Amino acid sequence: MTEFKLRRDVGVRLVKSNASDADVVQAARVSTQGVDSLGEVGKPAGLINYLMRDRHGSPFEHTSFTFLVEAPLFVAREHMRHRAGWSYNEESGRYKELEGSFYAPGKDRPLIQVGKPGAYVFEQGTSEQSRDTREGLELSYRASWFYYQRLLEDGIAREVARMVLPVGLFTSYYATCNARSLMHFLSLRTISEGSLFPSFPQREIEMVAEQMEAALEKSMPLTYAAFGRHGRVAP
Amino acid sequence: MTEFKLRRDVGVRLVKSNASDADVVQAARVSTQGVDSLGEVGKPAGLINYLMRDRHGSPFEHTSFTFLVEAPLFVAREHMRHRAGWSYNEESGRYKELEGSFYAPGKDRPLIQVGKPGAYVFEQGTSEQSRDTREGLELSYRASWFYYQRLLEDGIAREVARMVLPVGLFTSYYATCNARSLMHFLSLRTISEGSLFPSFPQREIEMVAEQMEAALEKSMPLTYAAFGRHGRVAP
Amino acid sequence: MTEFKLRRDVGVRLVKSNASDADVVQAARVSTQGVDSLGEVGKPAGLINYLMRDRHGSPFEHTSFTFLVEAPLFVAREHMRHRAGWSYNEESGRYKELEGSFYAPGKDRPLIQVGKPGAYVFEQGTSEQSRDTREGLELSYRASWFYYQRLLEDGIAREVARMVLPVGLFTSYYATCNARSLMHFLSLRTISEGSLFPSFPQREIEMVAEQMEAALEKSMPLTYAAFGRHGRVAP
Amino acid sequence: MTEFKLRRDVGVRLVKSNASDADVVQAARVSTQGVDSLGEVGKPAGLINYLMRDRHGSPFEHTSFTFLVEAPLFVAREHMRHRAGWSYNEESGRYKELEGSFYAPGKDRPLIQVGKPGAYVFEQGTSEQSRDTREGLELSYRASWFYYQRLLEDGIAREVARMVLPVGLFTSYYATCNARSLMHFLSLRTISEGSLFPSFPQREIEMVAEQMEAALEKSMPLTYAAFGRHGRVAP
Repeated sequence: MTEFKLRRDVGVRLVKSNASDADVVQAARVSTQGVDSLGEVGKPAGLINYLMRDRHGSPFEHTSFTFLVEAPLFVAREHMRHRAGWSYNEESGRYKELEGSFYAPGKDRPLIQVGKPGAYVFEQGTSEQSRDTREGLELSYRASWFYYQRLLEDGIAREVARMVLPVGLFTSYYATCNARSLMHFLSLRTISEGSLFPSFPQREIEMVAEQMEAALEKSMPLTYAAFGRHGRVAP
Repeated sequence: MTEFKLRRDVGVRLVKSNASDADVVQAARVSTQGVDSLGEVGKPAGLINYLMRDRHGSPFEHTSFTFLVEAPLFVAREHMRHRAGWSYNEESGRYKELEGSFYAPGKDRPLIQVGKPGAYVFEQGTSEQSRDTREGLELSYRASWFYYQRLLEDGIAREVARMVLPVGLFTSYYATCNARSLMHFLSLRTISEGSLFPSFPQREIEMVAEQMEAALEKSMPLTYAAFGRHGRVAP
Repeated sequence: MTEFKLRRDVGVRLVKSNASDADVVQAARVSTQGVDSLGEVGKPAGLINYLMRDRHGSPFEHTSFTFLVEAPLFVAREHMRHRAGWSYNEESGRYKELEGSFYAPGKDRPLIQVGKPGAYVFEQGTSEQSRDTREGLELSYRASWFYYQRLLEDGIAREVARMVLPVGLFTSYYATCNARSLMHFLSLRTISEGSLFPSFPQREIEMVAEQMEAALEKSMPLTYAAFGRHGRVAP
Repeated sequence: MTEFKLRRDVGVRLVKSNASDADVVQAARVSTQGVDSLGEVGKPAGLINYLMRDRHGSPFEHTSFTFLVEAPLFVAREHMRHRAGWSYNEESGRYKELEGSFYAPGKDRPLIQVGKPGAYVFEQGTSEQSRDTREGLELSYRASWFYYQRLLEDGIAREVARMVLPVGLFTSYYATCNARSLMHFLSLRTISEGSLFPSFPQREIEMVAEQMEAALEKSMPLTYAAFGRHGRVAP
């Protein structure tokens, strides 16, 4: 039996990667120079910029990033809707007894949503609302956690007992993608001034996306710069 | 505010489909006869059987089924891991206030799991366990539902309030697939004597799969028979 | 043995479809209204426009179009690079003896390319160039066709004999897609004034794309209008 | 202008890879142990064998192999029909002038096919047939190559001139896959005694597949052994 715990951050660890701007250039040169291209890289920034602008996406696919993510179930659910170029393995409530870590928003997370669908604006809320939210989440989570443990103690199968666990529960998953599928994810799951298309991600998946964005920037700075320059639309 | 409700079945409604054995035959004949094939169908059973046996999967893809599924969140989560050849749209806890329908297993659903991973056997459990499970699930669900409503009444955003809702909550989603992706789903999410490979689906997703299997059998009887004859391995 | 034939058009026949603007609306309403949505359509134009603008692509996937395409091999090769949401079955040179239809550009097809990669401009060419092209293509095609037939007559396997056949040879294939994957194809394989991103398709695949575009416009006029309004970027 | 050349082998170079049995084990342990799994590997052979037998395919996806392939166009065409988990970049006849390398089967390549579709048997053929094939292919290829060069010399666009080039011409392409998509490719594109399902690949794509199989065996020996033990059906 693990202890009940509240947590307000998400975890994104880059487990391994095999991704560089040179990979993009090599792949693109196969198209324009054939087999003799191997080894030459030439002037990568211009080429990468051109590929991004004209939406030649395939050269960005010969790269891979594997992340270990710790996030609430509602984030994992949104994340796994991204199918093309993504692979996942998630902690299973059928195979293991789950840990008691639950998500509670930090103080700076706005709690009130005003406006209509597709154009919500979030506001901070009063300090009462903030306190009541934290209290309401904790009490509800504790009740769910209590019944989960009681069902397990009673000998009930894990796959049945877990039915009471809320989507605020933390899960962990492996997520592997390539630079193209990662950019597509970033375009929809972050808010950024330079975006050609608006997006309205829930803050918690954006917290995951921001850490993945940092990994892309570090491994593939030219690709990352070109992505920003062309409106953060994945090629 | 909707009422609290327990429910033990799942709902699978075939919204529309465009799928027949003749579609498979036509597509396969393009390979062997080219453009002149259109219109001829010939002896479909033998051809479909041959395609299945030799794992020529693509002719089965020119078909489509759209289902509206009502099932608990933990089923939707498993379902949406099927990516290739599947499309989904699910009810969103960000865009709407969710309904208070929760899943409680029926009396014939075994509750106790014995053995080791990959070879679990389920047993019925005592009548005390059955009663305690039903009671534990209901009390926990009611607590979650209570806090969800209280947070909403307090003006908290839906996307925050829903964090307390359990994976036993019902959701609804559109799911579109083709005959090939449907057979792949069935091979992993049902238990059937004739299967070449063992599978250990959770009972609740099998309940969804069984209804989809009936739709396949009805629309594409020859394809369905060939699927069974060849060990329920998707081509 | 079929006769040698030159052909300058491509063929695109809509074999079947199951696609309407109402399908998009229904799927989107599952997200915002859940299971009760079925049957209501409301004001579809505004909703479809909003989905396109905010790049909610999944509601467009619950639709299907199946085309029978007759086009040169070099077009089929480009077409089949489109993977996500597309299914294909092509005439096979291993299973059948191929027909002697070859592609020769019509008189209005520009033959000369000037400028640098990514920004080519095509020019008409002189009448000598036009005549020489037509003559060169025909002579070369006839030589290939002669050797193909001679190898077959000599008893050589079709899969070996076909090695001499050029990419200008006509093939035929079934292609099934949904509205989202079709829009993605159109965004890359047509040239259109309203496009947010430039594209430089080869004229012959654009001839295929134009006929598919007409099918989209006819079945899903609101979707098609929204696609144009938002820069012909697939959602 | 490059020289005319006949070639009877294919080239498969492993450009880079990031794939080991430990990757599979780590990903699978996330399911059964959650985030604490990282670092432990335990007894990998048994686990990998179990994953293969029960068709848990996703743990095999967190790996990547990038190959540079040189093969005739008819091989590239078959290869690129493999979509799920594969990425490609191919030499473009629109962007570059193509090289004059053409495929002619080696002496041990059977040329005669007897029997009916789905159950062909290949036979060696007489020495006259062998000589005639080689001669027929070479003469036809030379004719195509002559006209390609003449059209280019006449100033005709590369994308038009290439229409005369045969599918026996060599191309080169980058192909990136993961261990799961690679096993699926091998199951369909090789002939092997231990296969649960029959397959009838053309010999030339099998030559490509054999070299990729060697790369899989070397990087992931336990995965490779389990693949063979379970009938060469991809999980």
